Amino acid sequence: MSTYWVARALLEQTTTRGVVLEAGADGRLGAVATGVERPPAGARTLGGPDGLALPGLVDAHSHAFQRALRGRAVGGDFWAWRAGMYRLVERLDPDTMLDLATAAFAELVLAGVTCVHEFHYLHQPAGMDDAVCEAARRAGIRLVLLDTCYLRAGFDGAALDPVQRRFSDGDVDRWATRAERMASANPDVTVGAAIHSVRAVDPASMAGVARWARERQVPLHLHLSEQQAENTACLAATGCTPTELAHDHGVLGSSTTAVHATHLAAGDIARLGSSGTTVCLCPTTERDLADGVGPAATLAEAGCPLRLGSDSHAVVDLFEEARAVELDERMVTGRRGLHPPGALLGAASGGRRLAPGEPADITVVDLGGTRLAGIDATEPGPMLVAAATAADVTDVVVAGRHVVRQGRHTGLDVAAALRTAIAAVV
Amino acid sequence: MSTYWVARALLEQTTTRGVVLEAGADGRLGAVATGVERPPAGARTLGGPDGLALPGLVDAHSHAFQRALRGRAVGGDFWAWRAGMYRLVERLDPDTMLDLATAAFAELVLAGVTCVHEFHYLHQPAGMDDAVCEAARRAGIRLVLLDTCYLRAGFDGAALDPVQRRFSDGDVDRWATRAERMASANPDVTVGAAIHSVRAVDPASMAGVARWARERQVPLHLHLSEQQAENTACLAATGCTPTELAHDHGVLGSSTTAVHATHLAAGDIARLGSSGTTVCLCPTTERDLADGVGPAATLAEAGCPLRLGSDSHAVVDLFEEARAVELDERMVTGRRGLHPPGALLGAASGGRRLAPGEPADITVVDLGGTRLAGIDATEPGPMLVAAATAADVTDVVVAGRHVVRQGRHTGLDVAAALRTAIAAVV
Repeated sequence: MSTYWVARALLEQTTTRGVVLEAGADGRLGAVATGVERPPAGARTLGGPDGLALPGLVDAHSHAFQRALRGRAVGGDFWAWRAGMYRLVERLDPDTMLDLATAAFAELVLAGVTCVHEFHYLHQPAGMDDAVCEAARRAGIRLVLLDTCYLRAGFDGAALDPVQRRFSDGDVDRWATRAERMASANPDVTVGAAIHSVRAVDPASMAGVARWARERQVPLHLHLSEQQAENTACLAATGCTPTELAHDHGVLGSSTTAVHATHLAAGDIARLGSSGTTVCLCPTTERDLADGVGPAATLAEAGCPLRLGSDSHAVVDLFEEARAVELDERMVTGRRGLHPPGALLGAASGGRRLAPGEPADITVVDLGGTRLAGIDATEPGPMLVAAATAADVTDVVVAGRHVVRQGRHTGLDVAAALRTAIAAVV
Repeated sequence: MSTYWVARALLEQTTTRGVVLEAGADGRLGAVATGVERPPAGARTLGGPDGLALPGLVDAHSHAFQRALRGRAVGGDFWAWRAGMYRLVERLDPDTMLDLATAAFAELVLAGVTCVHEFHYLHQPAGMDDAVCEAARRAGIRLVLLDTCYLRAGFDGAALDPVQRRFSDGDVDRWATRAERMASANPDVTVGAAIHSVRAVDPASMAGVARWARERQVPLHLHLSEQQAENTACLAATGCTPTELAHDHGVLGSSTTAVHATHLAAGDIARLGSSGTTVCLCPTTERDLADGVGPAATLAEAGCPLRLGSDSHAVVDLFEEARAVELDERMVTGRRGLHPPGALLGAASGGRRLAPGEPADITVVDLGGTRLAGIDATEPGPMLVAAATAADVTDVVVAGRHVVRQGRHTGLDVAAALRTAIAAVV
């Protein structure tokens, strides 16, 4: 058991002073005490006198290997970007994947991310899946590995290209067999399921993946309507929108997360909302890939919990993602204050709280720097969403372990690890 | 004279190793030597082994006092935000303005800004203008003070409200008299002119301000078409767009900067381009105020030099502004690579170069951190625009003076100065 003390913590959306947090051997929080003016004997101090502890941030959508593309793929449209991403995939094997994912996950932890949902589709050659699991261990991050089913090149039934063959298990049964093997081999990892997209998985297989996830009570994710071209192709092939197709095959629901959900019809929003499907927005990637702006506020009103993802790792900063949700919608609606700041902070921390029984994952932000100077520390939400950055994170605890201390990862030199891993593949 | 050595510098868009920069007593660069492997005797080193010197960044549009609003005005539309800004103005006097502008300017310097164009309209009570000039001295930043003419509440001739009366000199002659007095009293400051907007200055007075700036060969700035409501009111009152009205009264030209230029007709773009008018984009403020996305790429193609401004200081990060220009246009066009990365970096540094005779203003970025890990140091532009942040700036030289060293302002505790100054007015 570890005991932590922090000058301030955000408990139930209220800032409380002098907080002691007990972390149990099970990686969950035990007692939470408040009003403790000084660190008790044996307690570790998180952050400085201007430190504020938040529930550990959650990155709900990541493709860690895409970190190698940051600043390298600047022209063309989404599909041109995808071609560049495929060229990177050709250079990845289990060793380079291990190094690259370790470094990318460690960058996430430095940015305050305590749990990453890795949407993992690069299954071949053998060893890729275990490399991602091992990378999370080395980086000290909690991993939800969304084992992704990818079976076809598109609605027209065209053959998979050589790169895409590395994503495919051939059929949904073989996908399930491999996913189960990986889950058994990595009992410390939560293995969930993903349908890459309605393009890449036929309806019957989609239903199979959804059934698998339901039976095991694990999360299910899918990319949904990131690009208009997906909607157009889906309508032409099936007469349905991607959301309708997913709905008709049992994919939506309260354990499902739709990623992007950018180009939606009114009926799609109603289906996502009434099914309680979570929507994960990845606004800095959506900006980068010229995807467009999704109807986040309308989705939230319709009943969708919102989450945030670093996705392509073009930017690794969940505070930036949180404000980008609001700011991008302002640009297309002309209105401000579409999301309560508390709701966006809640999205960044995956709906978690600092309370007994919750994960012992803690992200500490320094309120004493220039960006946040002038903050109302009793109600920090608006300023954190408006102005905090990943660079304001000083301390991170994951499953009770103190992984980032005074802005440094305790296990590895993250910048050096990134440089080495990227140089090997670009 | 001061001599600086840096591991790498961006000279003429190319990265050169081992660069020695001489700064003269006139605040301009003298000799620039390259290929110097170690700091010569008597030279100061800027940054570390991964340091890259850029031409000093230029903030081409600032309202320093609005820093106090960061994270505080989150709902309503642009006009509701303006009402909140007016409430702040009511609490400002020369003393609070001095403290607030000093702290805000110092935050700019920490972010690598070496020269700020302050669009200053809060002239009453006496002493406000000098307070802004003194603030720049204390912060160690180069100041172009754009003395702003503000004469009316709108096209309908309604009386100025009590707050707006603090902006107004009554007529253009009295505006000019005051501006000239300020220029004489502050010979270290470049005093330029500004027309607040076509709303706030009648056409004849607009022409007068433009003539004054032309005769003195000083820069002229104006807010232009930030909001659709300005366009609608201008068309109704005059039959012209704001750009047409400015053009017809001699306001456009190569010494003029139009700020925002968000809502433009095709004819407006042609007029701005053919006149060589500079356009200053303030995308993080434009996001914050739900202004919309201007046609920056089309303006650049039409012949407008682009510049960047921190405007409301909601965000102080010219790298973020640079990428936001590109990213916001991607969101509305669906296309990527609209601006060459070198052009956006050039906008951030106001078109300056590190070359003899140029201002001895230098901004050093550390390429060794996590955000920029993997950068191609021989061609850093794309990654700097994609991923650098103000937090990557380690050293800043202004007019030959080393103002920021290892990420710290050498003259004041910027966060403490911000906290004190903001607490006095909110």
